[in-house]
Amino acid sequence: MKFGKILTIGIGESSLGPEYWKRLDMLAERRVNLPKDSPDIRAHLADADCILTGFGVKVDKADMAAAPRLKYIGVLATAYGKIDVASAKAKRITVSNIAGYSTEAVAEFIFAAILEHIREVEKGKRQAREGNYSESGFNATEIRGKTFGILGLGSIGSRTAEIALGFGADVRYWSRTRKPEIEAKGAVYEAADSLIPKCDFLSLNFALTKETEKFLNDKRMQAIKRGAIVVNTAPMELVDIDALERRLAKGDMTFILDHSDEMTPEDLKRLSKHANCVIYPPIAYVTKEARMAKQEIFVGNMESFLKGSPKNVVN
Amino acid sequence: MKFGKILTIGIGESSLGPEYWKRLDMLAERRVNLPKDSPDIRAHLADADCILTGFGVKVDKADMAAAPRLKYIGVLATAYGKIDVASAKAKRITVSNIAGYSTEAVAEFIFAAILEHIREVEKGKRQAREGNYSESGFNATEIRGKTFGILGLGSIGSRTAEIALGFGADVRYWSRTRKPEIEAKGAVYEAADSLIPKCDFLSLNFALTKETEKFLNDKRMQAIKRGAIVVNTAPMELVDIDALERRLAKGDMTFILDHSDEMTPEDLKRLSKHANCVIYPPIAYVTKEARMAKQEIFVGNMESFLKGSPKNVVN
Repeated sequence: MKFGKILTIGIGESSLGPEYWKRLDMLAERRVNLPKDSPDIRAHLADADCILTGFGVKVDKADMAAAPRLKYIGVLATAYGKIDVASAKAKRITVSNIAGYSTEAVAEFIFAAILEHIREVEKGKRQAREGNYSESGFNATEIRGKTFGILGLGSIGSRTAEIALGFGADVRYWSRTRKPEIEAKGAVYEAADSLIPKCDFLSLNFALTKETEKFLNDKRMQAIKRGAIVVNTAPMELVDIDALERRLAKGDMTFILDHSDEMTPEDLKRLSKHANCVIYPPIAYVTKEARMAKQEIFVGNMESFLKGSPKNVVN
Repeated sequence: MKFGKILTIGIGESSLGPEYWKRLDMLAERRVNLPKDSPDIRAHLADADCILTGFGVKVDKADMAAAPRLKYIGVLATAYGKIDVASAKAKRITVSNIAGYSTEAVAEFIFAAILEHIREVEKGKRQAREGNYSESGFNATEIRGKTFGILGLGSIGSRTAEIALGFGADVRYWSRTRKPEIEAKGAVYEAADSLIPKCDFLSLNFALTKETEKFLNDKRMQAIKRGAIVVNTAPMELVDIDALERRLAKGDMTFILDHSDEMTPEDLKRLSKHANCVIYPPIAYVTKEARMAKQEIFVGNMESFLKGSPKNVVN
């Protein structure tokens, strides 16, 4: 089975490699590509049975009403908040997203950022470039034997736990549900408020929900151990920025973040003032392997749907 | 039991923390400290029953002849080549060194250096400091699923294997002797010349011996896989520098080293020219924990000797 007509909205040519465009085109009679705000979208909905959207592209009830043949919406992102999934469900339209493609990328980056900090890697490289080959003045520490806390043990949190166990850390986690398979490997379950004051390393791996928004509130922020290193590779909405700034001002902990692209210039400016706040571009989820997996899942979702066993369905 | 008189030679005040000097002084009636080349050494040997030496301090047969009461020589280093251990043995003098104190420090640094490179961490930090919060242009890769080779599976190589297994790498090693306990965890034994061309990551963890000197010769250097990352936290005598420079000039692999302090200015200059040679000061073995362990082992060796169960004896 094939689609009759694929309409892509807001998916640039470079979003997929040529080999994936080729595989995708084998799944349909024809394909029309339109930018996100094209006035031609409505007209092209009339005979499209497949819509593919990029990150943040809206598909609402009216769009679906204008697309009587529509049976599949594929989102080239994890977030699908702009798709009216309830209306799609009512109309028996399958909506699939892509999830989990960057699990390994993010988990490994957490250690890249921690190790850079505790081993003074940037300083080491710079010093050697300047011709100074002395180890004097380096104050490094190790991960082994330290308490490594993880808040949120989804796929990224679980991989983070496994890697931390490989380093020989005392891994403790809190999550909405217990994860026996990670506990079997050596991670210990502990209530967040009991865990936070113990951690030498603390990784935030919650999905952003009403329950996790500002989870790191003022009370928890002040409870973090002196000298601890906190890494947030999740959205900064998990953190009370005012509380973070107050704690950073004490100079007795380090906060590392990479969702800088989603922050306001004001918040970035406030945090950048503090040398103990290490800010990265959003590079935790960016690897060659993640990019490949993203495309593979996206096209694979379409293939699975056409074979009658849809995958990664969100509605 | 206590020592009568400890003579320290070439151990600076700052080599041990005050708490370790205190513990040490509880082990003897008195202590005399002399610098490495002091003319007073010979006179003080007469009644010393314990000599403690810093790195590279010579204690030869004549010194021992001048120290009729000597029963213990403690070396505050792993290397003890300047001590005439055969003469010491003949005179029933115990020689203890300190080994293994930096195992974890070095193994963790190997991953710090690899992750810095494959995640472009230095570039990320710099870019964010300059106010650029875009992930565009980053070309990162992951450790998981890659072939991670280790040459030399002593204590550091073994810990490197364990950490790499935590990252989900396909870990392969070659060593003089097989290590069933690491194989049980998932590492695979493979002949060096079969292993080298397969590795995406290759860590040199040999001790320097006649057999391992210039182990990475021209043939092996040219056999390294395109795109591979080679990390040497061991002495550069393991590597044929001419061969390395020829391979670096091809621009298709990365070599990371940290024993820069032991290299000639000429060799450093030759290698620094190549952007794909990443040079660090000798910081792999430097951590707070390693420094503590070093002192602990040094004083612990003395305590064990006095209790009649000498440890870390090298003769």
